[in-house]
Amino acid sequence: MINQIGKEAKFASYQLAQCPTTTKNKVLAVIADLLEKHSATILTANEKDIQAAKEQGLNEAILDRLLLTPERLLSIANDVRKVISLTDPVGQIIDGATLENALKLQRHRVPLGVIGVIYEARPNVTIDIATLCLKTGNAAILRGGKETIHTNLATITIIQQALEQVGLPKTAIQFIDNPDRKYINELLKLDKYVDMIIPRGGAALHKLCREHSTIPVITGGIGVCHIFVDESADFDKVYPIILNAKTQRPSTCNTLETLLVHTKIAKTFLPKLSQIMADNQVILHADTEAFKILETGVANVFPVEDQELRQEWLSKDLNIVIVDSLELAVEHIREYGSGHSEAILTRDLTNAEKFVNLVDAAAVYVNASTRFTDGGQFGLGAEVAVSTQKLHARGPMGLEALTTYKWIGYGDDLIRQ
Amino acid sequence: MINQIGKEAKFASYQLAQCPTTTKNKVLAVIADLLEKHSATILTANEKDIQAAKEQGLNEAILDRLLLTPERLLSIANDVRKVISLTDPVGQIIDGATLENALKLQRHRVPLGVIGVIYEARPNVTIDIATLCLKTGNAAILRGGKETIHTNLATITIIQQALEQVGLPKTAIQFIDNPDRKYINELLKLDKYVDMIIPRGGAALHKLCREHSTIPVITGGIGVCHIFVDESADFDKVYPIILNAKTQRPSTCNTLETLLVHTKIAKTFLPKLSQIMADNQVILHADTEAFKILETGVANVFPVEDQELRQEWLSKDLNIVIVDSLELAVEHIREYGSGHSEAILTRDLTNAEKFVNLVDAAAVYVNASTRFTDGGQFGLGAEVAVSTQKLHARGPMGLEALTTYKWIGYGDDLIRQ
Repeated sequence: MINQIGKEAKFASYQLAQCPTTTKNKVLAVIADLLEKHSATILTANEKDIQAAKEQGLNEAILDRLLLTPERLLSIANDVRKVISLTDPVGQIIDGATLENALKLQRHRVPLGVIGVIYEARPNVTIDIATLCLKTGNAAILRGGKETIHTNLATITIIQQALEQVGLPKTAIQFIDNPDRKYINELLKLDKYVDMIIPRGGAALHKLCREHSTIPVITGGIGVCHIFVDESADFDKVYPIILNAKTQRPSTCNTLETLLVHTKIAKTFLPKLSQIMADNQVILHADTEAFKILETGVANVFPVEDQELRQEWLSKDLNIVIVDSLELAVEHIREYGSGHSEAILTRDLTNAEKFVNLVDAAAVYVNASTRFTDGGQFGLGAEVAVSTQKLHARGPMGLEALTTYKWIGYGDDLIRQ
Repeated sequence: MINQIGKEAKFASYQLAQCPTTTKNKVLAVIADLLEKHSATILTANEKDIQAAKEQGLNEAILDRLLLTPERLLSIANDVRKVISLTDPVGQIIDGATLENALKLQRHRVPLGVIGVIYEARPNVTIDIATLCLKTGNAAILRGGKETIHTNLATITIIQQALEQVGLPKTAIQFIDNPDRKYINELLKLDKYVDMIIPRGGAALHKLCREHSTIPVITGGIGVCHIFVDESADFDKVYPIILNAKTQRPSTCNTLETLLVHTKIAKTFLPKLSQIMADNQVILHADTEAFKILETGVANVFPVEDQELRQEWLSKDLNIVIVDSLELAVEHIREYGSGHSEAILTRDLTNAEKFVNLVDAAAVYVNASTRFTDGGQFGLGAEVAVSTQKLHARGPMGLEALTTYKWIGYGDDLIRQ
């Protein structure tokens, strides 16, 4: 079954690669319109998912994440319309020259081909990723979480209807609807047809893909992010940044998980911080030294465990670790960080530059919140995923990350000497 | 053992990443000088490898490939000196802007970190790859073929001596000297420390890496390359290109393996081609229709088997297949090609553009030999590998392919709204 899906996706990808931007934009416009036109059908399908989730006893936070409302659906349709307005990277000539050997060589940006996307339960991802793939002339094979299966099937129907309406093969976007997990493993081995795998989900899904895929995988999305407050920091300017990084949206991957504080300022800095955090319902997990300072404070403070320093809280919990130097802050980040987003808060130019150079992460900030690591914030117009690996794309991935290039050489009956 | 090697390589990579270009160039200069100074030691080590190869009964072609001569060694040293003169990509600012949200964002080019390279028996690869890694500030873990083990150990000694002489850790370039293949598997799972795996060898090695690595792998180097001669081709201009693509260096991956000929010209085109090929000791493997035309000719002609169309000959053998149209030529290439290098020989502009657009390969040529797909020919200054996958780098990989980027954001105490 999967082999047939792959074969058809590859075949459709050849057609998509030749599509002019206007045709691709037309598909997107039709998808947006159909989402509005068939909103009742989609919302009914989503109700089934919500009902099933309630029967399974899933908690309110998850139910809210699964839920589509008329407003949310309209916002998804409008996001599709936004993608129409983005520049199509396909067909760009990246560079070119007539070489010493007389070859006229150019690099042209082209679609990747077929993209496999495995994602967990969110009702918008199907439309979101299909839209970005179509805009860049790629076919896609999607595998969404079973919690939103009815919503996914309803939106896939709309995508395929739009494709046919514009005269493109509906196999350009296919969905694996069988919940059996063995199909994930089969998809991961489909290197004959699939050019890239994007997992969108938790650490376990990324690990599964890295270990089993014979296709290049973009791993990322896991953010164990740090802020280091050095001894020169201006306290009043620092507190709002920490609060923003921790509490603006705690469930995101660019949220602060561990605050590193220079030992010289710990005693004066931490009490007011704990007060602010307590006022904002943040629970602190402190290392031994920080715990000594904080235990007399007002906040909910617990001793931190080593394992807690290696994970994403995804909640209003914050680790506090005291370090003796910038170098030790960097060492801590190397040991515990996930290479996502790291920041230094400082007034010292040398420290700022040292931190930026020594820390190896997708995004490194000076006097800014880690929350900026995001395709929208970075001005990329769209976000395919956030990569924490170093090949192909690092950090927020825009449309360009769904393309590759082709070297095209023109000769006047040219042979190699 | 491998874990310790990985840990030390990662540690060394942090130091290399901070190295100014002058220091990195100094290491390379010392390597080149030591290669000349200790040429006797290296040549003696190489003699041991040659002796062992002879005892194993390896053939002359392989013996020649393993052999170092004083001239070849000098040429390796001079190649190192050429890398000194190349521009260091590390530290380049790729782009930057002050964004709407007031974040001053830049993308800086940085080393990948630790690169694992697994290669088969050639006496120059150790120096070659170590040099390119050091120039780009990367640490490397090398695993060379056992046929050149003595040569490899002699050259590794020199590299590590040069590193220490310049004050860099010798663990920056490490070599796995144990011939047990289990260490390859262990290296492929070392994702905690290694950022990229480059296999340099045959199809089996690439498959092994793709299937077992949990680290991103650059696959490539396998070239089942085609030339399509369309009905408008000017025969006299075409023959020299085919001869060049097939015979200039038959053992390379950019060598022509299958010639696709438009059916309209087959009868007039093939007889003289077979004559030219016979004059140059090329054996033809023809499909049924071509065989009918050629069996009365002068060349050594055999019927081609399907399997022969899927492989690299690496010798003076050439498949001939007759196709009814450009579209069918493209279909053949999609089915049998390895995405390396493909060419059309034509006088027709529409056909040229159609071929270039429809063929999905790292390099596509119009009226030029496939032999141009090469880092040196493409003006990249060096060639790390030739990628036939689409992520990160496609086609010949220069120094830039050994780097990634880091997003650096400067804020004036900036929070996300």
